[in-house]
Formats: sequence, C-alpha cells, structure tokens
Amino acid sequence: MDFSAIVARQIGADERRGFPVHFGSDAERHDQLVRDLVGLIGEIGEFANELKKVGLRLNNPKYTGPSLGEAAPHLREELADAAIYLFRLSTILGGDLERDILSKMDINDDRYRKLER
Amino acid sequence: MDFSAIVARQIGADERRGFPVHFGSDAERHDQLVRDLVGLIGEIGEFANELKKVGLRLNNPKYTGPSLGEAAPHLREELADAAIYLFRLSTILGGDLERDILSKMDINDDRYRKLER
Amino acid sequence: MDFSAIVARQIGADERRGFPVHFGSDAERHDQLVRDLVGLIGEIGEFANELKKVGLRLNNPKYTGPSLGEAAPHLREELADAAIYLFRLSTILGGDLERDILSKMDINDDRYRKLER
Amino acid sequence: MDFSAIVARQIGADERRGFPVHFGSDAERHDQLVRDLVGLIGEIGEFANELKKVGLRLNNPKYTGPSLGEAAPHLREELADAAIYLFRLSTILGGDLERDILSKMDINDDRYRKLER
Repeated sequence: MDFSAIVARQIGADERRGFPVHFGSDAERHDQLVRDLVGLIGEIGEFANELKKVGLRLNNPKYTGPSLGEAAPHLREELADAAIYLFRLSTILGGDLERDILSKMDINDDRYRKLER
Repeated sequence: MDFSAIVARQIGADERRGFPVHFGSDAERHDQLVRDLVGLIGEIGEFANELKKVGLRLNNPKYTGPSLGEAAPHLREELADAAIYLFRLSTILGGDLERDILSKMDINDDRYRKLER
Repeated sequence: MDFSAIVARQIGADERRGFPVHFGSDAERHDQLVRDLVGLIGEIGEFANELKKVGLRLNNPKYTGPSLGEAAPHLREELADAAIYLFRLSTILGGDLERDILSKMDINDDRYRKLER
Repeated sequence: MDFSAIVARQIGADERRGFPVHFGSDAERHDQLVRDLVGLIGEIGEFANELKKVGLRLNNPKYTGPSLGEAAPHLREELADAAIYLFRLSTILGGDLERDILSKMDINDDRYRKLER
C-alpha cells in the first residue's frame, strides 16, 4: 500500500478521535509535538523493556524471560506503534514523511558510497 | 511509493554498506537489535533537543532559539532517520512493517471507536 | 546520605547479582553500556507512558486515566530506576557521577549567569 | 556530598534562572514535566549517539569514530546532564529522589536475592 495513503488513514482516524494535527498557533503545535514525542518514547520504552528481557535470558541462564522468537510479535507491535507516532509528528510539522524518507535515503546514498562493497 | 518498496530500498542499501539484517543466531540478532535501538534513540534525542529549543524560545523571551518554522526541516529530517531505524528493526525481527502497521490500525479502529465523534 | 555511598551500595549489589561493571576489554565494556542504555530507555519509557495517561486525562474529559497525584508514586519510582541505571553507566565508564554532576553544575553556573534574575 | 544537598543546589539554581519547579495547578505541573522529559530524552540521545560511534569503530575497521576511552568524558558529561533532569522531574513531582532511590534499592534487595551468588 502507498506509504502516504497509510499515513493519511492514520491521521484521518486520529482527527475523528479528537487527536488533532492542525493548530492555530506555534505554541499549540509545539505542545502537541511534545505530547506525541512523549507517546513515542513510551512505545520505544516498551520495545526496550521487552528486548532487555530477551537479552537477560540470552546472557543469564537463571533468568526466565522470553526467547527472541517468543518476543518478536510484541516487539513488532511496538515498532508499529512507534511508526504511527512518527506519522503524527511529521504531519503536525507539515511534513510528508514518505518524501522526507526518500530524500534522506538519497543523501545517505551519497554519504555512504565509500562503505559500499 | 509502496511502503514495503521503501523499506526494501533501505535494507538493500544497508546490506551493501555492511549493516546486515540477517543473522545466524538469536544472540547476533539481539545484538544488532540493541545497536539499532541505540541508533534510534540517538535520532529521537536529536529531535527532542531541537524541539526543546523551540519550546524555550516560545516560553522565554531571553532565549534565542529557532522558531518552529525554522526548526521544522531539521525536525522532519530526524523523523525520517528514526523511520529508517524502524525499517531495520522490523526487518531484523522478520517483520513486515507495512502489514504490522495496518494490523495495529485495525486494532485501534476497534479500541478507539468510543472516542470517535 | 552521601551520593557516592549510594552509588557504591548499588554497584556492590549489582556485582553480587551477576550484573558486572568491570570488564577486560572495550568491546565488553561497550556491550554492557549498550545493554544498560536499553534498560534506562525502558524505565524512561515507563515514565513517559504514565505521564501520557495523566496528560490524556487532563486534556480529554472522556479519558479515565490517573490524576497527577495518583500517578506520582509510580512516576517517582521510575525516576529512581532511571537513576540506578545512570549509576551503572557512569561506573562502567570509570566515572564518578557525583563529581561529574558537580562539575557540570559549575559549568552551568557560568553559562546561565545571564539568565539569573 | 549529600545526595539531597546536590539536588537542592540544582533546584535553587534553576529557580534563579527561571526554570521553575513549583506550580499552582496539575496542568502546569504536567506541562513542565513533559518539557523536562523532552530535555532528558535529548541528553540520553546524545549519550546514545556517542556510544553508537564507539560501537561502529569497534565493529567496522573503515569507520573513524572515537575509542571508548576518547568518548568517555563526553559520555560521562551526558550522564551528569541526565541526572540533573532527574533531579528536576523528581522535585516537580514532590519527590525526594534520595529517599526514592534508597527505597527502590531495598525493594531490589528482596527481589533479586535469588540471583545473589
């Protein structure tokens, strides 16, 4: 599915649910960015906590945490949640995340050419 | 552009540059996930630092930071960098980020129906 | 209680529990720093998730989250957990966190003198 | 130096510089917590970025990043900055970080007794 269509689906749902992305002032826009950044950190923190448990089990035979295979569905769900916050943050900033990612890939193609094998 | 095609472009470039996503053991897979999580945190930290400066200027007339409009291109670039790390983390986990995002949106459609106006 | 004595209590307990802070190579030292950074992100993520719920309740009358007073004990516990990770990270780096904090306060005293009222 | 005296020094300096920790409403208190959380994420992100460079050099002979020894002073400074944000967040929450850390260490002493060697 088209990247920008996925973003548009999320933003439309957010607006119906009372999580706006359009604001009348930079102060309001800033405050929403900060709130969504807090949400993003929460999702990445959940990813980190689950990955920590996997690492403890790999390194410590006494620890009864999940294997990486067992944790993978949860870890993937957290990445999806994090992506949804990126969609919101980008839209509040007036950005086009698809275009911004493709532009950054072009920059990286130049920057890392010397590392290519 | 198709979401999954964008992910595939990034992963192909990473592999040519010596940043692998396929591993022979869960221990190696875990170690790369941890390294990419560190990279993700770095990008989100840069986003946070720039957003902090915007907030200080909005709240403190003595502070000479960027306006939100001035900071937006930098902020958007950090979001693109963060998205690229999500592509890597998802792929290392054997995930399909496009599908995982769409599945999560379906779940959220059910969960948040009561908030819809 | 003395800052450095609190750090020493934690590091002593960690070593008894098999969470080392001394290593024979930079590669091992780096790997433990990365693991502890993941743990730190997990704690800050829990703080962020709880604070997000407080914000949703403050901004959204339909949302049944905790008040700030109700959330404060949990939030404070996450800060304590985060501090404990800072103790570990500092010690693995051969640092003296008390001294490093006091040095940074001296630097900030110079830097922010113009903001003082 | 006493842990709580170090916290008090920082909070006193913050108040002189116009970074308050006392507020008249939970809404204002929440907004400041969110702003300080953003600051904390920024510091941890700088730590992560520096640690990432160390890891790239350790794992990739083509990469010209700092050694762990070269990066350690910068990494330690970021930890001090992060600690200062924890002081602020704890104080805004009406907490006593020293007491909260010691309480958490007591809890961990019980919880991890079975891991002790």
